[in-house]
Amino acid sequence: MNLLPELPEGVLFVRFREGERVRSGILSEDRRAVHPLEGPGHGTVSLDSVSLLAPVSPGKILAVGLNYRAHALEMGKPLPQEPLLFMKASSALLSPGGTIRLNSMSDQVDFEGEIVLVVGKRASRIRRQDVRKYLYGITIANDVTARDLQRRDVQYTRAKSFDTFCPLGPAILAGGLPESRVIETTVNGVRRQHSRASDMIFDAESLFSFVSHIVTLEPGDVILTGTPSGVGPLSPGDIVEISLEGVGTLSNRVEADSAPSWTGFGET
Amino acid sequence: MNLLPELPEGVLFVRFREGERVRSGILSEDRRAVHPLEGPGHGTVSLDSVSLLAPVSPGKILAVGLNYRAHALEMGKPLPQEPLLFMKASSALLSPGGTIRLNSMSDQVDFEGEIVLVVGKRASRIRRQDVRKYLYGITIANDVTARDLQRRDVQYTRAKSFDTFCPLGPAILAGGLPESRVIETTVNGVRRQHSRASDMIFDAESLFSFVSHIVTLEPGDVILTGTPSGVGPLSPGDIVEISLEGVGTLSNRVEADSAPSWTGFGET
Repeated sequence: MNLLPELPEGVLFVRFREGERVRSGILSEDRRAVHPLEGPGHGTVSLDSVSLLAPVSPGKILAVGLNYRAHALEMGKPLPQEPLLFMKASSALLSPGGTIRLNSMSDQVDFEGEIVLVVGKRASRIRRQDVRKYLYGITIANDVTARDLQRRDVQYTRAKSFDTFCPLGPAILAGGLPESRVIETTVNGVRRQHSRASDMIFDAESLFSFVSHIVTLEPGDVILTGTPSGVGPLSPGDIVEISLEGVGTLSNRVEADSAPSWTGFGET
Repeated sequence: MNLLPELPEGVLFVRFREGERVRSGILSEDRRAVHPLEGPGHGTVSLDSVSLLAPVSPGKILAVGLNYRAHALEMGKPLPQEPLLFMKASSALLSPGGTIRLNSMSDQVDFEGEIVLVVGKRASRIRRQDVRKYLYGITIANDVTARDLQRRDVQYTRAKSFDTFCPLGPAILAGGLPESRVIETTVNGVRRQHSRASDMIFDAESLFSFVSHIVTLEPGDVILTGTPSGVGPLSPGDIVEISLEGVGTLSNRVEADSAPSWTGFGET
């Protein structure tokens, strides 16, 4: 369960691990410390001394495809008339700073920087004009995608759901909306994606309202709002960083697959 | 979280609501009573006096398409070379006896009777021959599907994920496998689907192994194994019943959509 505290608009909510415990807190103004929200000792904790976690553990990771014109064009797809909904498995969640593990089933794993809507309250069939009452805030995700499997399977589920394929965080901007914020992705320091949220085909309130007419959204569920143009492949050793204006930077390292490979249906 | 007790093979595990409490138990041999597994009073409870719940609350509802030859043919699709993986939103879960609510976004909502694999232990990259150590048992689902939206969206997510679109239960056959069990669906008492599990293209162990190489499976996660031929539409007032040999019958009523409709992106 995600117990999301009521927070003033504009603060940056984080979760972090301290020893065995998971705590939540607010980033300090200089973003170098955390003010814990609960637990023993309400003093400030240096960000260097803790490991940030994904700011929520979503029950459902919902996502939309082709929500920026230039990305639909680069994928050779027509613009959608309605949001193209898909899901990533919740087990794909990865913390800020965590390692994206490539999978031996795929020969091409791409980054996709995205703005994320975080659900604050149970929400079913919410009108567009009421969305802000149910939206907790915004954060960042890397919608890591096995591009070859996405094309081959047609269904996106496998391509989008491998373990570690959903880095999320580092912080939720409480009460935030995408508006015209700049979202930017770099790989090894080289800029690969750069867009404004105002280039979305379906905006945050429309997406949230649409999705809430299909499924009941629960606190901590997330909606990934689509990626701008510029997606490309990741290689072992790469550092991929996604920055969202006013929210922060989600940074992850990439490594090769070392676990036992899938060997097909031929073996016993 | 799903805390699944260790049980002897062959017993039927259920969850039920008694007042405000959720309890679990074992069906009696005549299937008319429940022996509760915990809580005050270990006496037998009559099945008439309690409401059965879905036997697990899955974190992930994974599913495969086109896993019976005759169904692939009726859908006009080629046989898959690998299991065609998709997901249903966990919020679609419905208890045995619960009401399937049609959705005004769709003009054709179909039943799909399916055998379900229930995950017993955390499972990642499990070899086919080790699957039984991780499989808790089998149960029944209705993979309710908005057929028109499935065709239009290409991605199955919306068509498969409306609230109430995943009736599950009534019981888990502990340690069970699909083998050559008969699965049968009736609507208003008329037989619509009838097949043997042995007609699956990919069997239970293959499916479980394959999925575990993509996502980490958690206790209570479920894998829907595909539907036989004979799928068809549901109408308000219908009673749809899916029976699986040795497991029981999953029965649900259908009603029209009464909640506020989605009215498109035109309105504010």
